[in-house]
This record gives sequence, C-alpha cells and structure tokens, in this order.
Amino acid sequence: MIRASLVIIGDEILSGRTEDKNLPYLAKWLGNLGIHLSEVHIVLDNEDDIIESVNTLRKKYEYVFTTGGIGPTHDDITTDSIAKAFGVETRIDDDALEKMKEFLDGKELTEPLLKMLHIPEGGELIYSPATKAPGYKIENVFVMAGIPKIMQGMLEGMYDYLEKGEVVHSRSFDILVGESFFAEKLEEIQQEFQNISIGSYPFSRDGKYGATIVLRSIDDSALDNCEILIKELISKY
Amino acid sequence: MIRASLVIIGDEILSGRTEDKNLPYLAKWLGNLGIHLSEVHIVLDNEDDIIESVNTLRKKYEYVFTTGGIGPTHDDITTDSIAKAFGVETRIDDDALEKMKEFLDGKELTEPLLKMLHIPEGGELIYSPATKAPGYKIENVFVMAGIPKIMQGMLEGMYDYLEKGEVVHSRSFDILVGESFFAEKLEEIQQEFQNISIGSYPFSRDGKYGATIVLRSIDDSALDNCEILIKELISKY
Repeated sequence: MIRASLVIIGDEILSGRTEDKNLPYLAKWLGNLGIHLSEVHIVLDNEDDIIESVNTLRKKYEYVFTTGGIGPTHDDITTDSIAKAFGVETRIDDDALEKMKEFLDGKELTEPLLKMLHIPEGGELIYSPATKAPGYKIENVFVMAGIPKIMQGMLEGMYDYLEKGEVVHSRSFDILVGESFFAEKLEEIQQEFQNISIGSYPFSRDGKYGATIVLRSIDDSALDNCEILIKELISKY
Repeated sequence: MIRASLVIIGDEILSGRTEDKNLPYLAKWLGNLGIHLSEVHIVLDNEDDIIESVNTLRKKYEYVFTTGGIGPTHDDITTDSIAKAFGVETRIDDDALEKMKEFLDGKELTEPLLKMLHIPEGGELIYSPATKAPGYKIENVFVMAGIPKIMQGMLEGMYDYLEKGEVVHSRSFDILVGESFFAEKLEEIQQEFQNISIGSYPFSRDGKYGATIVLRSIDDSALDNCEILIKELISKY
C-alpha cells in the first residue's frame, strides 16, 4: 500500500479560528490514485515543530504533503523550516524569478515577492495546470499553499510525480441502533473478511444513536459478499 | 504558557469521509482557560500509531487530549493502545461497572458493554456534569469519545483537573490587498511589539486576494496600541 501524510502548518488552525478544508480534499484526491492518507500533523508556525513533523513523517511514509506558510509575510516560515529539516540552504529559483519579472513587467521586485521565490536547495518547482502558482517538491516532500483554491491547483501539478496504487473502494451503510448491540456480530464479519477493513462510526441524530458501517477494500467481489452480511445484520434492527 | 495537544483517532477522518468538529471546539474551550492548543496528530485506528503519538506528545506538552476509538466495536482500540503507551494493563473500573448494572436494571451485561468499562491501570474516570458518559485521565492524558456532543460533555468534567493560564486575547482585521504589499510594514510592527504574536492569513474572495491580520497577546493595552498601527496600515489600501 502506498501511504502519505500531511503536515498542516498554521497557528490559525490550532486556535480554532479557521477550519482546515485541505485534509478532506487531499484524502479523497489521493484515494482516487490509490494512495492512502495515513497520518496528519497540525503544527504552529514554529520552526522546531515543523522540522520535527516533516522529519518524522518523511521517514515513515512514501509521501509528505505540507500546506500553509509559504506566503510573503514574516510568519511564513515553511520553506526555511523545510530547508533546515533537510540540512540545506534556500536559493532563489531562476525559473520562478524569470516568470515573476515577466509578470511584474517593470514594476518593482520587492523583498516580500523575492521571499516567495526561494525554495530549498535540491527542491524542484512544480507548475500547475490549474493555477499560475507553483508548489515545489524536495525528495518525497511536497509543499503547497494553505488557501484551498491555490492548494488544489498545486496538487494537480504533482500528479505526475506520484506513484499510483490500487484504489480502495468503500461502501457505507447506516444502522439505527447503538453500537453495543451489533458489535459482536460485526467483529465476526470482520474476522470472516480479512481483506476488508470494517469500521463503525457512531453518530447521534435527533437524540438517537446509530452508526455508519464502512467497508473498505481493493477487492470488489469480497465487498459484494460482505455487503450481503452487513445488510442482513442491519435488517435485524 | 500552558500548552496542550490533541490526538484525533479514526480512519474516518483520514479518509476524508468525516470532517472533524472537535479540534475547533477544544481549541476555543482551552483558550478560554488560558491553555494553548499547540499540536494535533490525526492517526488511523492503529495501535502503533496511537502509541507513538501519545508518547511523543505527553512528554512535549502539559496535556494530551484524545478523541475517538473508545466505543464497543472491534475497531475501537484507543484504551488498549493508551494502556500499552503507559506500559500497563487495562482493568474494569468498579464504579463504572456498578453504574452500568444500575442502568441495565437486570438486562444482560454483554461483552461489548463490558469492553467500554475498561480503563488503563492508574487511570481515573472523569464524570461529566453534562452527560452520563465519563471520560478518563491517566497522568496528563485525557481520553474522550469522538462524537462531538459526548466529547463536549466529557470535556466539562475535565475542567477541575486542568491548571489554568493567562488568557490570550485576539483581535482580527481584514485587509483587502495581497500580502506582498504590506508584508514589510507588518514585520516592522511585529518587531515593535514583541509581546504580541501577529499572524497574517491570506484568503481569496470573489477572485480578489486579501488577508486577515490577527493579533494575539495576554496584554490588552499592548493590543490597543498595536491596533492603531494596524488600522493605519489597512487605511492605506
């Protein structure tokens, strides 16, 4: 299985002020390529924390994606932190510089604009078919902006760089009774289908408890067989 | 500063199927107590991953909260994993057993119900004023359910166990111009106010770029002074 992780960088997510929208988008986008999002860290705009998470996750997973902190303001420290995580300096990307000069068409290339043209040594800009803004990669780490629309464009540019895996299919079924009533039977079904991952996700709706049972597997015919047993189970309640 | 972290446990968040609602709630709730949510890990229903995150974060922060995986189904493995993280066994909590028997009033105490009464040795149930469901704590780790309504009730029960810090006040201002135009001036203001954390969070709205500038500090009068400069800056655009 090809596994990926995500580091969400930004005080604003951890303060509860901004709700992250990139995780679900990335999870589904990767899922369609057969890549399994397997761990997420959300960290402050703090160099040590970014370095620690990136270095832990790039050893543990095939891919690490990051979002946030690559803008022009003083609190945008992602690129410097990633360079330090790899033990390299940052440099101005020549290609990005040329494109920026074209775009500015004689207007001043200010320090904040110049800051955004830096990427870590050994990194490679990744241009997007969807937006002008490039992300970049360094080894197995893919660096993206935090604004969802821009992040999504950058992600499209990364498609060609990612190894694709077998796509996991999922089917979900709601059962309108508390989990403790069906937990034993569900465990039996799980034991019968070792190549299916069966999850039960409880909810409360209008004061009543229920759960969504989700089956996940790369094997569609196993899912067909398992689905029959799950529907039998649900029909009892 | 008193700092906390959160481990969100659940395949359903990482698949993108379910959007977590507990992070922003916890961040704001803790913020009101002067406790700063400083890192979040989102992990699969996988023992090794849960153990690794809990053991990393409980050494790094004053408090670790966890959500999810304490139900009765086979994929609920949080309590077993936390016991292993602390190197202890789980045991049935006598008080919880008694309350469950009362509640069942002669009905069968099934295996799934029994499973939910286990907590790690050395742990302590924490009853909530808001719901009947208890969470539990073991050392500086606070374990809660994933369903937001239940999680919120458990959290109320944890209030008395937490040391309170100085509350950080925040003020936010929108500026309707791209960040690169004001980044240098904003950095100057940041340098002038060392006891304020100034963040700039870009957005795009109706195709135009802007940013929300957020000031955070425990010092209200410093915020007053800083606010004047920020408003001056915004008035230029």
